[in-house]
Amino acid sequence: MDNFTFYSPTYFAFGKGTENEAGHYVKRFGGHKVLIHYGGGSAVRSGLIDRVKASLEKEGLSYVVLGGVKPNPRSGLVYEGIELCRKEGVDFILAVGGGSTIDSSKAIAVGTVYDGDFWDFYSGKAQAEKSLPVGSVLTIAAAGSEASGGSVITNENGMYKRAYGCELMLPVFAIMNPELTMSLPPYQTASGCTDIMAHVFERYFTNTKEVEITDRLCEGVLKTIIKELPKVLENPNDYEARANIMWAGTMAHNDICGAGREQDWASHNLEHELSALYDCAHGAGLAVMFPAWMTYVMHHDVNRFAQFAVRVWGCEMNYQNPEETAKEGIARTKAFFHSVGMPTSFEELGAKEEDIPKLLETLQIDGRTEGFFVKLGRKECEAVYRLACR
Amino acid sequence: MDNFTFYSPTYFAFGKGTENEAGHYVKRFGGHKVLIHYGGGSAVRSGLIDRVKASLEKEGLSYVVLGGVKPNPRSGLVYEGIELCRKEGVDFILAVGGGSTIDSSKAIAVGTVYDGDFWDFYSGKAQAEKSLPVGSVLTIAAAGSEASGGSVITNENGMYKRAYGCELMLPVFAIMNPELTMSLPPYQTASGCTDIMAHVFERYFTNTKEVEITDRLCEGVLKTIIKELPKVLENPNDYEARANIMWAGTMAHNDICGAGREQDWASHNLEHELSALYDCAHGAGLAVMFPAWMTYVMHHDVNRFAQFAVRVWGCEMNYQNPEETAKEGIARTKAFFHSVGMPTSFEELGAKEEDIPKLLETLQIDGRTEGFFVKLGRKECEAVYRLACR
Repeated sequence: MDNFTFYSPTYFAFGKGTENEAGHYVKRFGGHKVLIHYGGGSAVRSGLIDRVKASLEKEGLSYVVLGGVKPNPRSGLVYEGIELCRKEGVDFILAVGGGSTIDSSKAIAVGTVYDGDFWDFYSGKAQAEKSLPVGSVLTIAAAGSEASGGSVITNENGMYKRAYGCELMLPVFAIMNPELTMSLPPYQTASGCTDIMAHVFERYFTNTKEVEITDRLCEGVLKTIIKELPKVLENPNDYEARANIMWAGTMAHNDICGAGREQDWASHNLEHELSALYDCAHGAGLAVMFPAWMTYVMHHDVNRFAQFAVRVWGCEMNYQNPEETAKEGIARTKAFFHSVGMPTSFEELGAKEEDIPKLLETLQIDGRTEGFFVKLGRKECEAVYRLACR
Repeated sequence: MDNFTFYSPTYFAFGKGTENEAGHYVKRFGGHKVLIHYGGGSAVRSGLIDRVKASLEKEGLSYVVLGGVKPNPRSGLVYEGIELCRKEGVDFILAVGGGSTIDSSKAIAVGTVYDGDFWDFYSGKAQAEKSLPVGSVLTIAAAGSEASGGSVITNENGMYKRAYGCELMLPVFAIMNPELTMSLPPYQTASGCTDIMAHVFERYFTNTKEVEITDRLCEGVLKTIIKELPKVLENPNDYEARANIMWAGTMAHNDICGAGREQDWASHNLEHELSALYDCAHGAGLAVMFPAWMTYVMHHDVNRFAQFAVRVWGCEMNYQNPEETAKEGIARTKAFFHSVGMPTSFEELGAKEEDIPKLLETLQIDGRTEGFFVKLGRKECEAVYRLACR
């Protein structure tokens, strides 16, 4: 096991009706003047934003609002949020939405108290030294941003995604009511669950040996999604299944699944170029990339893929030929994504093979590599993209 | 799934050499004048206390020391610590040891800044409103106290144990070097692992339905201990196995295994009377109590015990007679404890059947019940103790 640090100080309030405690938690964590940041009109139409406002008012807190966050959140709205926060003297950002809204909120939080351009952080030019506190009322189980210090923003000047993260950006609280995820359409629900599984995959396929405890936690999260996702596709109002998925999403990305081991993250980065170029759902892009990546890297550690097949998918171990078991696990992964309505190829996603050079260009892969399980240079990334085509 | 809150703000620094960062973390979390609190002479003889002192000195921090914490930590030393902290103006408690030392440190931390008698908290007369910060350098994988807000102290005036806990008592950091646990004798190692498993059992056997994610996390922690403990008994210097056990101990008790579900805790409370009366290792007492408790309550939910048998112990499900599978799981649990050198009866522990009335008296069970999976009154507690005799 590698040396590691683990820090997840976010306070979680989970369950029915918890959005009505938003004001209580903003106050507890030091907010006075709040930016309520959200996405589309559904949060308004459903009455959620009104309930959050009422909860803030009950605690005597004032607020301004900024909606309009899109999936793959854009730099333009971040600049707008920063200007608004400075003008209004905002001291707390409350994200009401999913990963995109929380990511956008984190960018506004570090940008508001920084003298320069917030993109300096995302482009690697500077490190954040302070941040406004961020809290969230989560409405989508997917990104795990409610419990991570990370944020991914799409720069509209060229449509490319970049990630930034630090301890300062760890949200101070997350309010998680599974009922708020019930209105999510099947495609977004499945896409979110794919993202959750992908967060575990990035940690599961590692070169670090003998990390049984994190292996087992990873497998537990994956098995939960595999069991619960088909239930919510069958009945979107299944509270218990929604609740299990929502908490699994947090467990997948607060890094308990990554403790003590090298992580990979090549597939996420390859996917970011897909969703930046085609504006597709991040999860859908991951459903395309992961089976391709797994197929490409499998021979690097056949036994790990066999363990994955047996422990996660319940395959029978083929002791005479572990490679067959490993392949079966990958096939089961792809078939599962398919069964829940996810695309598993460029073709099904609406991506084009002839765009691969463009994807490699925005990935800026020349002279460096992606991933750690297997280090992928330009040639290897291209090969993975090609495997993903069909 | 029940509504819940989850809060685990402790900063974990895990791995080789991390004890040399103690000063860094004390400073980060606001300490200036430190009480180094520890147990027996082994921490001194091994040079650990000297390394911790050097690390504090490097950061310009001053300290006083108080050793002598015993297993089942006593109220007397807590009073002594409180007096010392007040006299010396201590503002940070650094526990160097296992669960007993951390529990004693938490009691000193809340007691030092309280006007009355610290026992008020443990006897239910008062709630703590403030606390000094507590950090730890962990040397035993067992109690999970490094990541919990709980503390158990034995009152020497009558030799009975009482627990107290609150958010204020959550340690601010935990330094966890698995190498520090290598010198632990086999009996203490196995006793610690039994405690870890028991922390999961208390959460696993629940009346809350449909909490797949926490079921899976629980099973992952249990399977890890079952795999890794025999390895360290075979080779005490197996770093990887020690590391897996140490982190599993934290995962077992930071409450990720309890999220969203009713917990039990009858067995722990029944055991506390055993270790208070006989001064036995807490884990050894749990190895005696748990198989007895499981046998007594099994019929309340045979399918849950069958799931435990199949998923944790790898038993074959007997679909015609699930009770047989359930019983097999309990038998496997008892056999495992036996195989790692734990006692599994009063007789083996050195406890006496004729003391049962005394145990029930200090348990103060009249007019109330223990546990939630099945609520146990006086008669039922007596029956569990009797089952534990042989």
